[in-house]
Amino acid sequence: MQSVPSPASLDSLFRPRSVAILGASDDATRISGRPVRYLIEGGFKGDIYPVNPNRETVQGLKAYKSLADCPGVPDVAIVALPLGLTEQAIRDCVDRGVKGAVIFSAGYAESGDDGLAVQDRITAIARAGGLRLLGPNCLGIFNPRIGFFGTFTQSLDREMPKPGELGIVSQSGAYGSHIAYLARRRGIGIGYWITTGNEADIDVSEAIEWMAGRDDVKVIMAYVEGVRNGPRFRAALELARRNRKPVVMMKVGRSETGAKAASSHTASLAGSDAIYDALFRQTGVYRATTTEEQIDVAYACMRGILPKSNRLGVVTLSGGAGVLICDAAERHGLDVAPMPAAAQEKLQALLPFATVVNPVDTTAQALNDMSLLARNMEVILEDGGYDALIGFFTTVPNTRTLSGPLKKAIADGCARFGDRLIVMSMIGDPEVVADYEASGFLAFEDPERAVIAIAALVGFARAFDAAPVQVGAVARAEPLPARALAEHEAKAILAKAGIPFLPERLAGSARETGDAAAALGFPVVLKIVSAAIEHKTEIGGVLLGIADRASAEAGFDELMRRARLHRPDAKVDGVLVAPMAKGGVEVIAGVTRDPVFGPAVMFGLGGVHVEVLRDVAFRLAPFDRDEALRMIGSIRGRALLDGVRGQAASDVDALADLLVALSAFAAAHPDDLETIDLNPILVRPVGEGIVALDALLVTRGT
Amino acid sequence: MQSVPSPASLDSLFRPRSVAILGASDDATRISGRPVRYLIEGGFKGDIYPVNPNRETVQGLKAYKSLADCPGVPDVAIVALPLGLTEQAIRDCVDRGVKGAVIFSAGYAESGDDGLAVQDRITAIARAGGLRLLGPNCLGIFNPRIGFFGTFTQSLDREMPKPGELGIVSQSGAYGSHIAYLARRRGIGIGYWITTGNEADIDVSEAIEWMAGRDDVKVIMAYVEGVRNGPRFRAALELARRNRKPVVMMKVGRSETGAKAASSHTASLAGSDAIYDALFRQTGVYRATTTEEQIDVAYACMRGILPKSNRLGVVTLSGGAGVLICDAAERHGLDVAPMPAAAQEKLQALLPFATVVNPVDTTAQALNDMSLLARNMEVILEDGGYDALIGFFTTVPNTRTLSGPLKKAIADGCARFGDRLIVMSMIGDPEVVADYEASGFLAFEDPERAVIAIAALVGFARAFDAAPVQVGAVARAEPLPARALAEHEAKAILAKAGIPFLPERLAGSARETGDAAAALGFPVVLKIVSAAIEHKTEIGGVLLGIADRASAEAGFDELMRRARLHRPDAKVDGVLVAPMAKGGVEVIAGVTRDPVFGPAVMFGLGGVHVEVLRDVAFRLAPFDRDEALRMIGSIRGRALLDGVRGQAASDVDALADLLVALSAFAAAHPDDLETIDLNPILVRPVGEGIVALDALLVTRGT
Repeated sequence: MQSVPSPASLDSLFRPRSVAILGASDDATRISGRPVRYLIEGGFKGDIYPVNPNRETVQGLKAYKSLADCPGVPDVAIVALPLGLTEQAIRDCVDRGVKGAVIFSAGYAESGDDGLAVQDRITAIARAGGLRLLGPNCLGIFNPRIGFFGTFTQSLDREMPKPGELGIVSQSGAYGSHIAYLARRRGIGIGYWITTGNEADIDVSEAIEWMAGRDDVKVIMAYVEGVRNGPRFRAALELARRNRKPVVMMKVGRSETGAKAASSHTASLAGSDAIYDALFRQTGVYRATTTEEQIDVAYACMRGILPKSNRLGVVTLSGGAGVLICDAAERHGLDVAPMPAAAQEKLQALLPFATVVNPVDTTAQALNDMSLLARNMEVILEDGGYDALIGFFTTVPNTRTLSGPLKKAIADGCARFGDRLIVMSMIGDPEVVADYEASGFLAFEDPERAVIAIAALVGFARAFDAAPVQVGAVARAEPLPARALAEHEAKAILAKAGIPFLPERLAGSARETGDAAAALGFPVVLKIVSAAIEHKTEIGGVLLGIADRASAEAGFDELMRRARLHRPDAKVDGVLVAPMAKGGVEVIAGVTRDPVFGPAVMFGLGGVHVEVLRDVAFRLAPFDRDEALRMIGSIRGRALLDGVRGQAASDVDALADLLVALSAFAAAHPDDLETIDLNPILVRPVGEGIVALDALLVTRGT
Repeated sequence: MQSVPSPASLDSLFRPRSVAILGASDDATRISGRPVRYLIEGGFKGDIYPVNPNRETVQGLKAYKSLADCPGVPDVAIVALPLGLTEQAIRDCVDRGVKGAVIFSAGYAESGDDGLAVQDRITAIARAGGLRLLGPNCLGIFNPRIGFFGTFTQSLDREMPKPGELGIVSQSGAYGSHIAYLARRRGIGIGYWITTGNEADIDVSEAIEWMAGRDDVKVIMAYVEGVRNGPRFRAALELARRNRKPVVMMKVGRSETGAKAASSHTASLAGSDAIYDALFRQTGVYRATTTEEQIDVAYACMRGILPKSNRLGVVTLSGGAGVLICDAAERHGLDVAPMPAAAQEKLQALLPFATVVNPVDTTAQALNDMSLLARNMEVILEDGGYDALIGFFTTVPNTRTLSGPLKKAIADGCARFGDRLIVMSMIGDPEVVADYEASGFLAFEDPERAVIAIAALVGFARAFDAAPVQVGAVARAEPLPARALAEHEAKAILAKAGIPFLPERLAGSARETGDAAAALGFPVVLKIVSAAIEHKTEIGGVLLGIADRASAEAGFDELMRRARLHRPDAKVDGVLVAPMAKGGVEVIAGVTRDPVFGPAVMFGLGGVHVEVLRDVAFRLAPFDRDEALRMIGSIRGRALLDGVRGQAASDVDALADLLVALSAFAAAHPDDLETIDLNPILVRPVGEGIVALDALLVTRGT
């Protein structure tokens, strides 16, 4: 396996001391002229070497005939040349000892076999020469803190981004530019911005990993269509989690049409969307559905306060808005818990017309005496103990007379609670919003969007506090047999891995069948055993409710007859004799091997729940017990395990143990395991455990 | 029943020729001064009579000592007086012959029994005197076209609304003000705005009905916490549908906490949320989840183009955005159908680097020759035949050099397709957005929000084209018996209404049971029959699979024994003998009586689907076959009826017929029917029909 370059090698790309622009144009509107313009306008704190064999100067800077002519070795070379000249330019970079190159041009892997061949060649040259490549077919990279703009994105035309602690990583240049623009408009400063295009060398995973390790990055926004190295992507996201850096992700291609469009847009081999979803849940990544939501959540993260619980206080000037916020909170998993009774009395004494339970509706009365409002906020935070508070103030902040006093009242009320997240739902002109933000409040126009962002922060807090997963630490187990396995063989292997099965016996004759049944106790089940017959029931290979010895012996003969009839070619090992299991809720679990991310565990309720309602959950292996419990809790039919229609609650703990064992087994066999099906599994009442009745294990190369 | 005043009596409230302000203040910042200020600033085209016994003038206008002193009879009196003076003021209005009064003050029904008593008194005075009342506890009413502002809402402080064709109806004054402000900021002109507060007389239903009948209202936005007269609300929404006026609704109180907060905010008796949901689906009302969405959809409606189908064309400058829009379209039920092959060739010839299937990704290349972009749009609309087109142009419209040419290119491309909905997803300053809008395009920043709005318009088109429902036209059937009904009685009644049951016989002795079983053919089911025993299975009152005459006779005796044992008091009519029904998918249907909206029909799949997964659908009775099919299609487990695991598809047509029959029966018994349960119902394969196996019918007063 090729060794993965250390992310430290991205330092010079993100923070170069000198930059050469190969093919630099004097025309600042051209693709090859824009980086020069941006470097000048951005006040790059290093040396700029425009390279152009035909000019003495470029946009007022001295130009050089070639890379070799430059007075120093640039850290980064911006390759603003047509495709035909790129290969030589990359050789020149290697010869000169350049550390990183950014290739803008298109026409490589994304455009067919010829382009792929060129891309492979330049990648090989760069690898061999220790040169890191960004692109091709990308919009480049920038770092506003040092004024480094290795990009030709048009979105900087009007205004340069302000420096800050947001990192942006995008496979699409256009999308990356779009969210950079929106972030700036929302007042968010950007630390590092990178678009990875075809990812011949540097990919989103490495870029995220690099940012996750930086103290000057607080939040990471990412846009992904598909990744090729799943484990590396997962490791990057795990690092971000360990370092408490929220990752706010847009992963497109959920729908069928969308996925088709995505693959025509990039040359990515994308894992299935359900697997991405699982990965994001496991690594605490927030997956945004819309761009607006992605910006909202990143904006909220920048405040740096992650609420310790999902308890939300709500203060409004309007009862209607309070109801609306309650509805939104329930939808997004926040708890609008009531104020303690004593605190309600305090609030009622302050504002006689108010509704004081939570949501607290102060009515417009509160605006008549702002000190009452301040005291109100204080009581809510103090006695209510909410970790986040949302205040709905409609257009009041935009009124000249009330805006300042309102802001002061809220600030006064919150002064002693610096660790609480205070969110305003308010309508105000940009300067008014900036003014409220400067007092430490987050500002959202729509209360629903505020609620979504708060819920996202609560999710980050939970994910960051969860135990870290040692993804790389799983030892590979001894290889599985590279052949088809019969049921009893599969069960023997999985039993060793901790999956509970019934006591079963393999019988090779009618008489042995009778003996086994007698030893296990009637009634029993008889099942044909043959590695060649994967789906036994389809040939009538299972006999249920065998009640006595004579039936057991006759059953053996009957199963043999059926096997001969339907599958005369199949080698039959005998008959498996098992006790009849009854009671409990039927579930299924399994393992599937994703081509990008490796083994993933699936769980669902039995029967129509999985087959028709598609009510299933996935998680990448391995995972721990808490994750298994979250996985179980995530299916829609969860209540069936709580005991319905007078039944006892199911042994969910035992189910979680089984899923963890399955995930550990799968993780230890990343290369030689194809599929596991445990179907059905009976989850018995609490304390009585769980048992898998059937097992199918398909190894790779079978 | 009290007769409902004709909506025409709202004319003078919405369009008065003269207005008196009782308690008018010279201080334009006070509640009693603000309406005077707004009437002056709004340039009211009628007479203004400030009434104040202590002043000669109010805000520069001549003041009058009393209503009687006013030179004319005002159409509307604004009662800006404290609660204690209101009752006399209402008497004065009646004496003077005023047509409508607006009461601002609070402290009535919403604050307890004393307030309710006052409210009831003034309502009675007004009713007797032919005076229409708005409020109390409301923010009033306005009509910008004639400069009539009977409101003290602070939201007009900065800027008055511009006149237009949007109607706003809100139970909450604060929410109504909030959305009026947002509408104005979005460039939407308002025709009529009304907040109904305690609804002592005028309620949201009447206001919606009035607006639905106006040619100068194009779209209605409404905010509702709960209504008291369900049928009237339904009739108002039906009228809006018949007149093709989109209603964009915010109904709060979905969550439990939310519903609790709603009832503390108003004195409304609110129907359950599932019933509201059913009502909105049936009447084609768009129920918004967020305020932003409510404004977005209303904004889109104002364009006046409802796409004839859900086929959506997508043009982007960025492949990533195309994928994102595809994902959003799938989520919201729009079809990003591919371009015909020949058209794809045309597009590829125009733009060699483009992706041309749909989404069409022109790449930034299209910006180099705008005439190509225009031609591109033209081909997509012409050959693709999409009824709606969304163009994603990120920040390009906001660039000085490209904005104008881009707008012209799109306008040129769309020129021949005036009936298509053209939507821009673009980032631009307000004046740029207004400029694009002036060319006939809708503008949204976020593509997801654009997609949601387009999907809403498609929904309105479908709802408006559906056959109208004759809600009021259902004749009441002869009353149901006011006593508990035994199963066979319930079945007899429902069979007459068109519900299919098995041929069953009532047997009064063991011998009759044997005869009946023999006549029906074995195997049969025996069920105890007693109006006093609602849940037969709980006492073992059902025997399945009776295979011969002897078992049938013994079964009769056994059921009698069990009935005597468990329910010695119950009068037993005998035993019902029925054939054993097998096969088909189990579903359940029923009728419940909502206290606000009357009878509603429920439908769901049998067993855990209803009990645990709550996968059910409601519709208010009556409804037609199309609505029944939509109802069946709306449950998550719908696929179970399509035939899964090798089973035949179910007879959904027969199921729809049953639901329609049930709804007609329920609608004909609005007052004397409490509940119907048909559980289980077997839906057999296509062409083989449907049969209800059990029926429970509870009449009111039982």
